[in-house]
Amino acid sequence: MEAGSFVPAKWVPQMASTAEILDSVLTQPPSAPHGIAYNYLVPNVRGLENLVKVFQAKGAQNPSGYPTPPASPSPELSEAAALNVEVQSANSTEISLFAAATETFSQKNTNCGIAESLERCRPIMELAKENNIRVRGYVSVALGCPYEGPDVDPHKVAEITATLLEMGCDEVSVADTTGMGTAPRTRKLLETLKDAGILNEDLALHFHDTYGMALVNTVVGLEHGVRIFDSSVGGLGGCPYSKGATGNVATEDLLHLLHSLGCETGIDLPKMAEIGQWVTAQLGRQNDSRAGKATLSRMKDA
Amino acid sequence: MEAGSFVPAKWVPQMASTAEILDSVLTQPPSAPHGIAYNYLVPNVRGLENLVKVFQAKGAQNPSGYPTPPASPSPELSEAAALNVEVQSANSTEISLFAAATETFSQKNTNCGIAESLERCRPIMELAKENNIRVRGYVSVALGCPYEGPDVDPHKVAEITATLLEMGCDEVSVADTTGMGTAPRTRKLLETLKDAGILNEDLALHFHDTYGMALVNTVVGLEHGVRIFDSSVGGLGGCPYSKGATGNVATEDLLHLLHSLGCETGIDLPKMAEIGQWVTAQLGRQNDSRAGKATLSRMKDA
Repeated sequence: MEAGSFVPAKWVPQMASTAEILDSVLTQPPSAPHGIAYNYLVPNVRGLENLVKVFQAKGAQNPSGYPTPPASPSPELSEAAALNVEVQSANSTEISLFAAATETFSQKNTNCGIAESLERCRPIMELAKENNIRVRGYVSVALGCPYEGPDVDPHKVAEITATLLEMGCDEVSVADTTGMGTAPRTRKLLETLKDAGILNEDLALHFHDTYGMALVNTVVGLEHGVRIFDSSVGGLGGCPYSKGATGNVATEDLLHLLHSLGCETGIDLPKMAEIGQWVTAQLGRQNDSRAGKATLSRMKDA
Repeated sequence: MEAGSFVPAKWVPQMASTAEILDSVLTQPPSAPHGIAYNYLVPNVRGLENLVKVFQAKGAQNPSGYPTPPASPSPELSEAAALNVEVQSANSTEISLFAAATETFSQKNTNCGIAESLERCRPIMELAKENNIRVRGYVSVALGCPYEGPDVDPHKVAEITATLLEMGCDEVSVADTTGMGTAPRTRKLLETLKDAGILNEDLALHFHDTYGMALVNTVVGLEHGVRIFDSSVGGLGGCPYSKGATGNVATEDLLHLLHSLGCETGIDLPKMAEIGQWVTAQLGRQNDSRAGKATLSRMKDA
């Protein structure tokens, strides 16, 4: 679960109270059977130092492994899925590091090229490992760039993903930040990642539903054997640094798809739909989940 | 293209001027290379008599065959697709007849059971054939019923579809009116239709995106060999007689999917997106097409 971001408050004022959130989260008992991994975006060493300060003050220790048992859509696919299950029963803290798949996006968003942005990740990774904090890498604009267009080189994505994993990332989320991804290019990207020796259990997929393709691309990912998918309740999201990017695919829509395919997620869709309705109302945003709204409407009639 | 409905104006006041629309359409030159099939919903013989009156007054004659060359997503699938191509270059007039896949929906919406509703279609079919007007059948709630739930018997859908085709329908659109359809149930339905001897070229699929599944189900239909898909620009729609039914899948989203899979539709997505924006604004409705809105936003930036 994305809990906050240790970015300077002058960059993103909404994230100013992230340290307080971390402080509070570290004292919460696990609310899910296997605990929840709370994730914090960290743009630089300074950000991680601020996180570690709170982490150490609380005497917090991270359990090992990832908490979420992955979905298993069919018997023949569950073997691959089982590789990633490491059950635990405590909450954990992890951080996110970002790299971009195109030079232009990297320059525009981090003021440096891809190679340098990866080098900047190295000391953050080391500090995280010293503190037993898990690291999640992201490769943004992996299926389309607002500056360079839809044809992002899948070999470049594979190279960056491999570098992040070799550097010590516990998992890399390959992100279709612009929603330009299509089924054939998603398949090509996953095949290229596989050919580069990257294992499905080290991968997550992160789709935006900007063009309505997120669920079709999710099916491609499932068929390929990926079992970790990012989503956002009520379709909330967007990015102050990526113009025109709408929210991630809605969690409720993803759940409805996964359940319809026989996957077990351990998540109650009607309850998630209620959360989506509540949180979007709190934020004065439109509820962008089709399955969420339809589920609520059906519950109301029943 | 759905042009109107010859229902009594007291039932659906919005359709009161359908005769004028037909009159006007019959004098239009074809605006697409192969013409457009204009479709009118007809609930009974009286409705068709009203249509025929205008049709005969204009001395109109229907060209043979269906105007739309189907999409061909891949070389190995294009052979099946080619079966349905009958190129022509004039507009044509067709009517729609409806049957429901569940007894409860049939009773609630037509005040009679399925068998009787099919019998009522027979004289309409005969009058249409006499006037060389093509007939499109619909089987509504084929993948989920608001009264009987999601598990609609696929054999019942096959039986009704076969009856409509035997009776003289030129094509039957199998409709997921409630949007409850899932990929596994869509596959099962298509297999059941095939086992019942129904050919893909006699079939259309009609998905609603109520739960966000329309495009995933479209991919299942494409893989099965179906080449005709109903959609609605801007996701407009709904039905005064089917509570909670949101619009059909948006034409722009369907086009974006088809084009992304290499299908040729002959339709310009940016122009369709402009139409979607225009028509939803005219009606004071929200533009429900993700691909439409994203395409317009990208064009604006460029």
